[in-house]
Amino acid sequence: MIASAAGAAEPQADTAERPRAREAGVIIGTLPPGPRNAIVDVSGVAVGHATVVEGDAIRTGVTAIVPHPGDLYRERVPAAIVVGNGYGKLLGVTQVEELGELETPILLTGTLGVWRAADALVERQLALPGMEQVRSLNPVVGETNDGFLNDIRARPLRPEHVRRALDTASADNVDEGAIGAGTGTVAFGWKGGIGTSSRRLDPARGGHTVGVLVQSNYGGRLTIDGVALDGVRPDRTSARNAGDAPPATGDGSIMIVVATDAPLDDRLLRRLATRALLGVGRTGSSMSNGSGDYVIAFSTAREVRRTPGSDRHAQQVLANDAMTPLFDAVAEATEEAIVNSLFRAETTSGHRGTVQALPLARVLPLLRRQGAAETIAR
Amino acid sequence: MIASAAGAAEPQADTAERPRAREAGVIIGTLPPGPRNAIVDVSGVAVGHATVVEGDAIRTGVTAIVPHPGDLYRERVPAAIVVGNGYGKLLGVTQVEELGELETPILLTGTLGVWRAADALVERQLALPGMEQVRSLNPVVGETNDGFLNDIRARPLRPEHVRRALDTASADNVDEGAIGAGTGTVAFGWKGGIGTSSRRLDPARGGHTVGVLVQSNYGGRLTIDGVALDGVRPDRTSARNAGDAPPATGDGSIMIVVATDAPLDDRLLRRLATRALLGVGRTGSSMSNGSGDYVIAFSTAREVRRTPGSDRHAQQVLANDAMTPLFDAVAEATEEAIVNSLFRAETTSGHRGTVQALPLARVLPLLRRQGAAETIAR
Amino acid sequence: MIASAAGAAEPQADTAERPRAREAGVIIGTLPPGPRNAIVDVSGVAVGHATVVEGDAIRTGVTAIVPHPGDLYRERVPAAIVVGNGYGKLLGVTQVEELGELETPILLTGTLGVWRAADALVERQLALPGMEQVRSLNPVVGETNDGFLNDIRARPLRPEHVRRALDTASADNVDEGAIGAGTGTVAFGWKGGIGTSSRRLDPARGGHTVGVLVQSNYGGRLTIDGVALDGVRPDRTSARNAGDAPPATGDGSIMIVVATDAPLDDRLLRRLATRALLGVGRTGSSMSNGSGDYVIAFSTAREVRRTPGSDRHAQQVLANDAMTPLFDAVAEATEEAIVNSLFRAETTSGHRGTVQALPLARVLPLLRRQGAAETIAR
Amino acid sequence: MIASAAGAAEPQADTAERPRAREAGVIIGTLPPGPRNAIVDVSGVAVGHATVVEGDAIRTGVTAIVPHPGDLYRERVPAAIVVGNGYGKLLGVTQVEELGELETPILLTGTLGVWRAADALVERQLALPGMEQVRSLNPVVGETNDGFLNDIRARPLRPEHVRRALDTASADNVDEGAIGAGTGTVAFGWKGGIGTSSRRLDPARGGHTVGVLVQSNYGGRLTIDGVALDGVRPDRTSARNAGDAPPATGDGSIMIVVATDAPLDDRLLRRLATRALLGVGRTGSSMSNGSGDYVIAFSTAREVRRTPGSDRHAQQVLANDAMTPLFDAVAEATEEAIVNSLFRAETTSGHRGTVQALPLARVLPLLRRQGAAETIAR
Repeated sequence: MIASAAGAAEPQADTAERPRAREAGVIIGTLPPGPRNAIVDVSGVAVGHATVVEGDAIRTGVTAIVPHPGDLYRERVPAAIVVGNGYGKLLGVTQVEELGELETPILLTGTLGVWRAADALVERQLALPGMEQVRSLNPVVGETNDGFLNDIRARPLRPEHVRRALDTASADNVDEGAIGAGTGTVAFGWKGGIGTSSRRLDPARGGHTVGVLVQSNYGGRLTIDGVALDGVRPDRTSARNAGDAPPATGDGSIMIVVATDAPLDDRLLRRLATRALLGVGRTGSSMSNGSGDYVIAFSTAREVRRTPGSDRHAQQVLANDAMTPLFDAVAEATEEAIVNSLFRAETTSGHRGTVQALPLARVLPLLRRQGAAETIAR
Repeated sequence: MIASAAGAAEPQADTAERPRAREAGVIIGTLPPGPRNAIVDVSGVAVGHATVVEGDAIRTGVTAIVPHPGDLYRERVPAAIVVGNGYGKLLGVTQVEELGELETPILLTGTLGVWRAADALVERQLALPGMEQVRSLNPVVGETNDGFLNDIRARPLRPEHVRRALDTASADNVDEGAIGAGTGTVAFGWKGGIGTSSRRLDPARGGHTVGVLVQSNYGGRLTIDGVALDGVRPDRTSARNAGDAPPATGDGSIMIVVATDAPLDDRLLRRLATRALLGVGRTGSSMSNGSGDYVIAFSTAREVRRTPGSDRHAQQVLANDAMTPLFDAVAEATEEAIVNSLFRAETTSGHRGTVQALPLARVLPLLRRQGAAETIAR
Repeated sequence: MIASAAGAAEPQADTAERPRAREAGVIIGTLPPGPRNAIVDVSGVAVGHATVVEGDAIRTGVTAIVPHPGDLYRERVPAAIVVGNGYGKLLGVTQVEELGELETPILLTGTLGVWRAADALVERQLALPGMEQVRSLNPVVGETNDGFLNDIRARPLRPEHVRRALDTASADNVDEGAIGAGTGTVAFGWKGGIGTSSRRLDPARGGHTVGVLVQSNYGGRLTIDGVALDGVRPDRTSARNAGDAPPATGDGSIMIVVATDAPLDDRLLRRLATRALLGVGRTGSSMSNGSGDYVIAFSTAREVRRTPGSDRHAQQVLANDAMTPLFDAVAEATEEAIVNSLFRAETTSGHRGTVQALPLARVLPLLRRQGAAETIAR
Repeated sequence: MIASAAGAAEPQADTAERPRAREAGVIIGTLPPGPRNAIVDVSGVAVGHATVVEGDAIRTGVTAIVPHPGDLYRERVPAAIVVGNGYGKLLGVTQVEELGELETPILLTGTLGVWRAADALVERQLALPGMEQVRSLNPVVGETNDGFLNDIRARPLRPEHVRRALDTASADNVDEGAIGAGTGTVAFGWKGGIGTSSRRLDPARGGHTVGVLVQSNYGGRLTIDGVALDGVRPDRTSARNAGDAPPATGDGSIMIVVATDAPLDDRLLRRLATRALLGVGRTGSSMSNGSGDYVIAFSTAREVRRTPGSDRHAQQVLANDAMTPLFDAVAEATEEAIVNSLFRAETTSGHRGTVQALPLARVLPLLRRQGAAETIAR
């Protein structure tokens, strides 16, 4: 069975019990979020998920991030990719670096599905109206390894999953947790998944929005808003087979997508993307050897959009000197998006065992005692 | 119809008339080639081609380069990738950069087939004995755009093509021209394709071999052994439709695979790979905007091979100071491999028209007159 | 007057009142430090400082880090440089990247003194015995901008300062605070300076030591062991002239030197250096636009040392898979070295005003209340 | 004695006998040069040389390239640096990469003088009107090793040399050969030095100019316009001491400065600079291990100039698709600038012996015979 949006409803019912970090009083950083505290606060950005749950062993999916609702191939957005640790299969890197632009939506999925996802994305985009003469396309597709909960070697991803994620992408989608590309991921030994957050600068500092979406599947010494949760460890006995265990050493990966409406060219986007990794570090990661830690950043600003066929692009680009508030914003939003992915993901059983959700009932009191979470009425 | 090895025989009969550059008296550089003047002169390296010719419009294929006959996943070779111009879809880049090693064979194919080729490669490798517990793999797959001769949007590549290229890979394979990944490529407006060459240093300089294989599909001002062939232009009327033409502006791409038995780590391989681009430049390319120009280099030396699971690798690595002869070798071998691809590729008709083979009867006298080719009995 | 070691004694007397972080009960991370909790825990590494204090306006200096006591030119150590934010003048970068090695000690100083420091270093090294035929040398010299406390435009650095830092370098030097290259630096609006820390892995994880030395001169939202100190702000009225202020926006810079006895080649050192930046991020920095944030890492292991003139280097290099504990170590040690630089630096007056030392009497209770510092008898 | 412009007159009289390549009928490439066939064809660019000749052993100098006559610090030009082989001491690299801009003139000099040159440049620029509050500056200074003709260890460069090169910089300066930073350099075993060339695109392709200036001090298999000059070898007996010899293995270096009036941002300039290295390769270099091969490219177009203090820059930037003609231009102009440096440099005696000028009387007939040089009346 392929989980439909309806099929995914049951865990979402469960999710209703699991607040986002900010709802639970955990306030990361000092800058205010956008209205939905999500990547879709960046105007035009849409997100779609296809959650693939089949039988006991298939727990994977696809997440699509669409930079704007127009013709992505003909109104390209500047983009940059930064590699924290390159132990991953992110597709499309060198062309983004050379040309400084995206020409397709971004997809995230599980490790061994990345090539099929790219193939399906190309198939779909080439079939769009106006694409009849296009003979080259650079899909950007990232992944993390969901091979504990998901029977990754069965390679269950199919083109319809990709199409569904793209076709259902919405500028209102703020879903988080064990959905889409986050269906089978594990972070810090707990159930990880999709998380999102945003920051909005005040008008005096440009008024720009920075939105982040993560697929968390990594590890380290779990630290939430500065509090190391050494006393809260996942139960290692949850694996079906003795000797097997969900990854907790930090291996695994994190994919980070950063969107902004600030008018940044590819160099400034690279600078912005670099700071997202600081947010990862603040959650207790040291980007372990086996982790593929990547940031893909793009700007939706019309002032920097590019149309093939014209010899020149008129641009309004932010000055280097105006970047610091954006750097603060992206580090904060990345950290909060990660925490959201843990707060929202529910306990999930799959191929090789069960991965518990982060036990908020134990975590929140610890955070409150150390001043990291306000005591709020819930 | 899928061209079998037998099916490819007819053009090869034609090829028999087309000499390699050195056979025609064109001697690139000063260093001697290895015994077969091919990448397979590097001991252990095997090459396989699947040529995909179907009806009037499908002219594509796959070429596989296998670093050594052992377990590539468990006896990894150090590797590096260098980007001359990153307008291409080369898969696997960041992991090679991070870990400095290859864990699969390298594939080359046409642009829109690259993801399926990678998927098929992963499928095949994961099914090999001893790979049952492997849940992550980094296929390295490159491409050039064969969209003039090949109906690239039909996306004809299938898993069996990939398997065939891999299964038939042989340490004796010195085939060149319009085969495998070179079936539909065009270089300098002429029929390009696969070319190969090698250099062997004398024992006093280390005795190492450098082998190069190219998939030529690019352009510029065609220059052979220093002689610019301005007077020899391809016939632009060969396109089926008025206004269409084979690419001659230099757009297109070149993929270069470099193998050596010198004990080089990934940093030294990156240095080596950089020099292959100088060979490209000597053929008259300025790495035009639309060209994806990549070099993948690896070392087969046992002294630098790596086995997962051990905490340390004992290595014997060449000193920086010993690199210059290898740099000379790779620039020469790349230039000659490219010339071989043009000398050996025969006239090919396909999707959007016909691309002529380089007219050696006109070219060789010009080269001889300018001292670039010796007059030899043929 | 040039402060002699004696001349620097007075502030050091004051420093005696200022504990290191760990002495004050602030325990960063989970790994144990080496015996001195300093970069000199990496066997062979020596550190020297020349503190340059003249009149009311000159507050600068030089710090030298010497990788080993032997002939650095003939027993080169593998090295890598990683750029967090490249708004700085670090000299020697491209040669370290190309050759993967250091051939001189590393110097740190103030921004406008960096070229003179390099020139003096070259002068001194070329005059060493055995260097008579050497006609090229690649000094690695970094800087941060001490232009608030120091009359940086007066450019007071002289060759004797460089020689003093090098000549007094000692494997016992664990000095911190407002000394050497840290004499005039400012971090988070407080007096910054030199800080150092180390981590030692247990034998089961390799037993290696990672040592870090920082020159802190940057900013952000000061966060110590996860506790954001929003309520403890420096007094902005300390500038001599209204409208002037010590930098608190995060502009400024941080130089980080990482030493290890683990046998790492330049690629592994680059991976290690990247993680030091995560430690910077944990202190509340988002690597602001004006900050030059650099990491220079080297290995002292004999198994990877290189001797010019030999054609091959025999190496024992750590496997990629064994790197994660070292990544944890360097992130922790960097964070602690930064905190040490703030804990140990005393209030300093200079060119444009006074910069207060971090008020530990206010800070430590806050840290203790939030569980970040143990209450310890002092 | 420090050679004044007058002091340099004698060799220049000699130089009058030595034509530029194009004057001798050697036409590199197909694109037309600008009116002076020099970097100063790019409007606003000025060049100045200080030639330092003292006694028998000092043969060095400084060359300054000034991007425009205005306030370089406040009207910054976009810039990029590309490293062919990083065995060199180029200063200022990381800030140019991070911020994508130049804020000082560029200097070239001899290896061991690079830090003093930078220091003198900073001293001079900080003393300019309007610079009173500037406390940071990023000088970009490159070098090649003139240690055969020059007593490099004597380190003769002084601040007045730097000031002279800058103060005499002129938009009319087309001097070449053994002057400025080229006074003591050696290329392919012959006397190298400064060379320059340009290309002007026709209006239909944008009408832009690309200018190149090189400091040639490298080697390989000397190839002029495609003709390898194997039979023309420098006399190795010219060294004063038996066993000593001018460098001919290719060690040494080449510094390449590229200017254009095309509106390119730093990414496009990086792409442009990469192609200059192809011109180096065409002269027979394989960028040998000991060579520091660097390209510094900047755009003088007002549409991309940046003023500190403003939050946004309005730009008109060329499209990726419009770059190919510029790529052709820079490869050709680099090759011709190198050939010019050899054609124009006269025989020079110095510290360790004599280096002959390229013997044009032998070379030109060879080139003509192979069609590389037209027979022209001279």
